[in-house]
Amino acid sequence: MIVTLLTDFGLQDTYVGQMKAAIFDLAPVALVVDLTHAVPPQDVFAGAFLLWSAVETFPIGTVHVAVVDPGVGSPRRAVALQSRRGDVFVGPDNGLLVPALDRLGGLASAVALDRPEFWRLPAASASATFHGRDIFAPVAGHLAAGASVSRVGTPVLAVERHMTLPQPRGSDGEVLHVDRYGNLVTNFASSRVPRAHYHLRVNGQRAPGAPFYAAVEPGQLLALVGSTGLVEISARNASAAELTGARRGTPVTIEIG
Amino acid sequence: MIVTLLTDFGLQDTYVGQMKAAIFDLAPVALVVDLTHAVPPQDVFAGAFLLWSAVETFPIGTVHVAVVDPGVGSPRRAVALQSRRGDVFVGPDNGLLVPALDRLGGLASAVALDRPEFWRLPAASASATFHGRDIFAPVAGHLAAGASVSRVGTPVLAVERHMTLPQPRGSDGEVLHVDRYGNLVTNFASSRVPRAHYHLRVNGQRAPGAPFYAAVEPGQLLALVGSTGLVEISARNASAAELTGARRGTPVTIEIG
Amino acid sequence: MIVTLLTDFGLQDTYVGQMKAAIFDLAPVALVVDLTHAVPPQDVFAGAFLLWSAVETFPIGTVHVAVVDPGVGSPRRAVALQSRRGDVFVGPDNGLLVPALDRLGGLASAVALDRPEFWRLPAASASATFHGRDIFAPVAGHLAAGASVSRVGTPVLAVERHMTLPQPRGSDGEVLHVDRYGNLVTNFASSRVPRAHYHLRVNGQRAPGAPFYAAVEPGQLLALVGSTGLVEISARNASAAELTGARRGTPVTIEIG
Repeated sequence: MIVTLLTDFGLQDTYVGQMKAAIFDLAPVALVVDLTHAVPPQDVFAGAFLLWSAVETFPIGTVHVAVVDPGVGSPRRAVALQSRRGDVFVGPDNGLLVPALDRLGGLASAVALDRPEFWRLPAASASATFHGRDIFAPVAGHLAAGASVSRVGTPVLAVERHMTLPQPRGSDGEVLHVDRYGNLVTNFASSRVPRAHYHLRVNGQRAPGAPFYAAVEPGQLLALVGSTGLVEISARNASAAELTGARRGTPVTIEIG
Repeated sequence: MIVTLLTDFGLQDTYVGQMKAAIFDLAPVALVVDLTHAVPPQDVFAGAFLLWSAVETFPIGTVHVAVVDPGVGSPRRAVALQSRRGDVFVGPDNGLLVPALDRLGGLASAVALDRPEFWRLPAASASATFHGRDIFAPVAGHLAAGASVSRVGTPVLAVERHMTLPQPRGSDGEVLHVDRYGNLVTNFASSRVPRAHYHLRVNGQRAPGAPFYAAVEPGQLLALVGSTGLVEISARNASAAELTGARRGTPVTIEIG
Repeated sequence: MIVTLLTDFGLQDTYVGQMKAAIFDLAPVALVVDLTHAVPPQDVFAGAFLLWSAVETFPIGTVHVAVVDPGVGSPRRAVALQSRRGDVFVGPDNGLLVPALDRLGGLASAVALDRPEFWRLPAASASATFHGRDIFAPVAGHLAAGASVSRVGTPVLAVERHMTLPQPRGSDGEVLHVDRYGNLVTNFASSRVPRAHYHLRVNGQRAPGAPFYAAVEPGQLLALVGSTGLVEISARNASAAELTGARRGTPVTIEIG
């Protein structure tokens, strides 16, 4: 059973290690995979995008724990959500989990994590700042050890859904994410790519459609379908973000020719 | 059996991966958990605090390998220390392990790692710069594979104890650690928090006690008991370190009202 | 079976996690070890050095997956290479794997990864940008699950060998790598160190040979044999890179006395 972790905890403290302690304590057989811990602090949108980007690659039945949680300790709800595909998401009910859940077929069932017997012991000691260690990781450990979603909480009918990845309007899209290489991941799905020649335009610059990086000269912009199925603006051996000045939210248009 | 790693090696080289090679070679069943590798280079105090912050979360019997080791290659001693709780610490005898050991009940037994048959083979090739790979990780591998502490070294009666986390004097404490979010972890234990209203003062600014982040307005300071059981100064959706200019060692006072 | 990963993917995206999904999906028993993901983007030389630095520490039979791949999606070849020692390297045929392969005895056999049945399913969906997830990791998963190298591809007689670590000419060497501490790893092998007193000279500064860091005063330069078997210029409790201004490629000379 794979358990993934995505947080805004960074790697300079021991927070991620403590989550793993809680998981392995309950499920020594879990295969724990870090998605990323470099979500900008409290940036729920960035976390939602990154979780969305990864989940389709994982086998059905994977447990995904995601924690970007500005409301930790407040009455905001903690949840476990089962996708129609059979995966489980564990985290705060603040929209973080929703795009990824929708990518795997949408919501099959949801529970609120209100049963302290599945939290870190002694449950009375659950901190007001670290539900990743005290609630989410132990629940994931119980799930990885075989507990069903319906057992770890009380059914709820609806979850917070305000978080959706913005859709393009016609030919007008935007940058959803800038990755490590400076690639600009747009919100144009691969199905939007014309069969004929096309290009993307961002901050006045033109990125022609190309099949792979080496099809253009070094330093030149190009557009291609990236690994998430979204069209990306890249630069061969260079950073498209640096060349264009674009960042998350920058408008992008797609044009024929 | 969980084996944790805490070092100042960073993640841009292959040093951490090489330590894991040495562990898995001897103990393929080990569950290796990174605590952090971002301890500032040779900052034994920071390493000691971070190790201290994490160990209570791990199951009894965990093997903790910690390497912040400016004296590597010199005659400084390498040790394995068993806590009264039953955990084992492996690393240099420079104080790094002491606060964590004390948190788990103090020293039950100690050995000096002077038996090359438990080091990387050929033991003659142990480097003068990388005891993490050549001594500490192999010893941890042997421990994870079932060797007892008494077997991997020669008993010693005392270990270097000069490293202790500074205690507050009355209402005067200090910042022990600044975490990824800019939270200021102080040395006031939760038992020091008055039942009545209280606040902390740092660099002339006031952080009122609050039950969770969302209890104050965005950008405002607050004080609350953090996940280590120490009082922290935080800011909702912001960095208390940036707002106050505080860093490790900055004085903090606790006041009623 | 250990599977190592070395890439220029960084840790802020989910690329590394997606590779692990592909491996664990096929080989849940694999022990996956990160060597580093901080290779500077598309810096094949840096990746080749870092892979070279680590592989000797791993048990015979380890599968090493390395991805620094500016030509991804182009007709550049993907390969699996078996070393004479019995290890396997999986990655692009751009020289990245060659120094490490040579360190483990050189090439025993090579295949081109041209059999989509060993790729991510559906193989038709292999992206033009992420062969790490879609080809290299699944092939490594098959290898870790027991497939032989000869099964996952078609034999090839030669691989790209233009990548070699530069050798010193007499007493004239250079800096191959600057590590996290600012240590300058040179290309002088330990066999080049004179038995008598010696020193290294870099940017006009003198680093005397010493047995370990603490043998010189804090802040002073020294030269010693590092954990890779190469001579390094270090500074006690300080960064030799900062003190000397040296970086990769900076000339270094070795002198008696």
